Amino acid sequence: MRTNGSRLSLCDTTLRDGNHAVSHQLGEADIRAYARAAELAGADVVEVGHGNGLGASTIQVGMAALSDTEMLTTAKEELRKARLGVLSIPGFATVEGHLKPALDCGVDEVRVGAHCTEADVTRQQITMLRAMGITVKGMLLMSHMAPAAKLAEQARMMQDFGAEAVVLMDSAGAYTPRDVTEKVRTVVEHLDIDVGFHAHNNLGLAVANSMAAIAAGATIVDVTSRGFGAGAGNAPLELIAANLHVREIASGVDLFGALDAADLAEDRFVKHVPTNDSITITSGIAGVFSGFAKPVRQAADRFGVDPREILMELGRRRVVAGQEDTIIEVAMTLAADDKPDPM
Amino acid sequence: MRTNGSRLSLCDTTLRDGNHAVSHQLGEADIRAYARAAELAGADVVEVGHGNGLGASTIQVGMAALSDTEMLTTAKEELRKARLGVLSIPGFATVEGHLKPALDCGVDEVRVGAHCTEADVTRQQITMLRAMGITVKGMLLMSHMAPAAKLAEQARMMQDFGAEAVVLMDSAGAYTPRDVTEKVRTVVEHLDIDVGFHAHNNLGLAVANSMAAIAAGATIVDVTSRGFGAGAGNAPLELIAANLHVREIASGVDLFGALDAADLAEDRFVKHVPTNDSITITSGIAGVFSGFAKPVRQAADRFGVDPREILMELGRRRVVAGQEDTIIEVAMTLAADDKPDPM
Repeated sequence: MRTNGSRLSLCDTTLRDGNHAVSHQLGEADIRAYARAAELAGADVVEVGHGNGLGASTIQVGMAALSDTEMLTTAKEELRKARLGVLSIPGFATVEGHLKPALDCGVDEVRVGAHCTEADVTRQQITMLRAMGITVKGMLLMSHMAPAAKLAEQARMMQDFGAEAVVLMDSAGAYTPRDVTEKVRTVVEHLDIDVGFHAHNNLGLAVANSMAAIAAGATIVDVTSRGFGAGAGNAPLELIAANLHVREIASGVDLFGALDAADLAEDRFVKHVPTNDSITITSGIAGVFSGFAKPVRQAADRFGVDPREILMELGRRRVVAGQEDTIIEVAMTLAADDKPDPM
Repeated sequence: MRTNGSRLSLCDTTLRDGNHAVSHQLGEADIRAYARAAELAGADVVEVGHGNGLGASTIQVGMAALSDTEMLTTAKEELRKARLGVLSIPGFATVEGHLKPALDCGVDEVRVGAHCTEADVTRQQITMLRAMGITVKGMLLMSHMAPAAKLAEQARMMQDFGAEAVVLMDSAGAYTPRDVTEKVRTVVEHLDIDVGFHAHNNLGLAVANSMAAIAAGATIVDVTSRGFGAGAGNAPLELIAANLHVREIASGVDLFGALDAADLAEDRFVKHVPTNDSITITSGIAGVFSGFAKPVRQAADRFGVDPREILMELGRRRVVAGQEDTIIEVAMTLAADDKPDPM
């Protein structure tokens, strides 16, 4: 089924997406220990950084404990075989300010991300990195919001810019296995390069969706130990390893190494294994970015409305990150609707 | 797809399978509050009791905080629409000592369970209950261990005894969605009565497997709030509700009611939301009953071997509950194999 030719590759993003779960406070000893464990688990890429990637450590988004270059240098020192990866979202990350210093730390590959209908904003960075001979991949965020044909078109643009793979992000944890099969298969058919899938667990489907992606031709799957990551968490490394084992799918993953990495992460820095609650589930149903959870709770308290109703309405309006002000408006409208009819 | 004619029905077993997760210590106030919440969530059956069902409160298996009749009377007082269910495993539960007193508490339906190849042991209880006009269902435990045709034959026996439905239990959390599709579809095709599926989450697939069961024709799905149950937990009520919602599958489930029930359970009595660790995952891979976790850890410590290796070997030997002594033998053998070669 792997139509585009590569063998299955795991990107372990525990030290990047997982950083969301500790407000970007992963420290040097954590990075050092976990990078080694991820390599022993057979991860091909170890992604490291602030939860939102290069240049995202700000007062607005949250300050990381370490600078990008501190995190990357530390991880690089521990990796022998696995490649060091970073996420770059144009808007947070600039070429001169962030990408070039990261490359000086020995980064092996860069993923350049954009909203699933805005692949054009990745052109400059993908083109430049490719010209420099750096492995570069595209990421389509919130990819549940675009139909398969649109994703194929946007992924194709990234391929044309020079991306060596495109990863579909289920940023809101809103996919079902059926969606995964349709979208991954369509994108695989339209590209000559590898296709990946990045799951979130809002509907309890992160593992099943990742396995469906592999069956549909994805050759890159993103994982974190214990699902450690934003909101309802990611596809757990150790469960993907278990499923690859029982399905007898060839990969470089070492089953007990993956279980060990997850145990180490839980012992060292996973303060709370991600689980679902009413808010993460509803944001998955609504297809709303999990970063909305906190402002939605605040608005619900302030206006005395059900936070789940706010999320469902934000979903109907197809709101995306950056449009947080809509939360207040929706909460006010719901509060007004709740008032007893004066008649 | 629901070939055998019924509409989808949820059995909420939070107050029975969930009792495993608190050593059978659910109290009267918990039962009262949760039974009401499960009814508002739209559960058709609320199953109540010791984790191992009627008559299982013993020093060996664990003493429950309340007697069977105390638990059942309490739940019954709160239910208006949902049916009160109990589990009966011949060996734990006897007709005179346990079943009849339970029926006197107003139990509406009884599930009679047996290992997946031993349906004949359910004959007496199913026949008797059916003759008494009580709704009775069969349960095939550890059903990953038998091929589809065998399950169909055993389920057919239960139907012939008088069972009004048969539920396949994934007691070890070892199914993949592909297994579910094959086995549920085969059993549905061979029976005239309803078929159900009871998931466990050892491979992170409880939700996907339950949805695959529904797609394959199952009309009964077992759930617990927050997955609260033995080992790696069950299919969470609230996530099944979410998946039914996004897949637009008709049922009596109220989405926000289900989210509320899970919130209430977590606030009141779920001390630890089930998550996976190395042991639960390995027992899912090996297809070993999760109740083996504790003695396996003890044997691993005693003989200085990896508990995961013990579980994998137990899986190869197809050990089932009641054969716990094999754990020691396997641990000793592994320890001997580990010794340096004297040559």
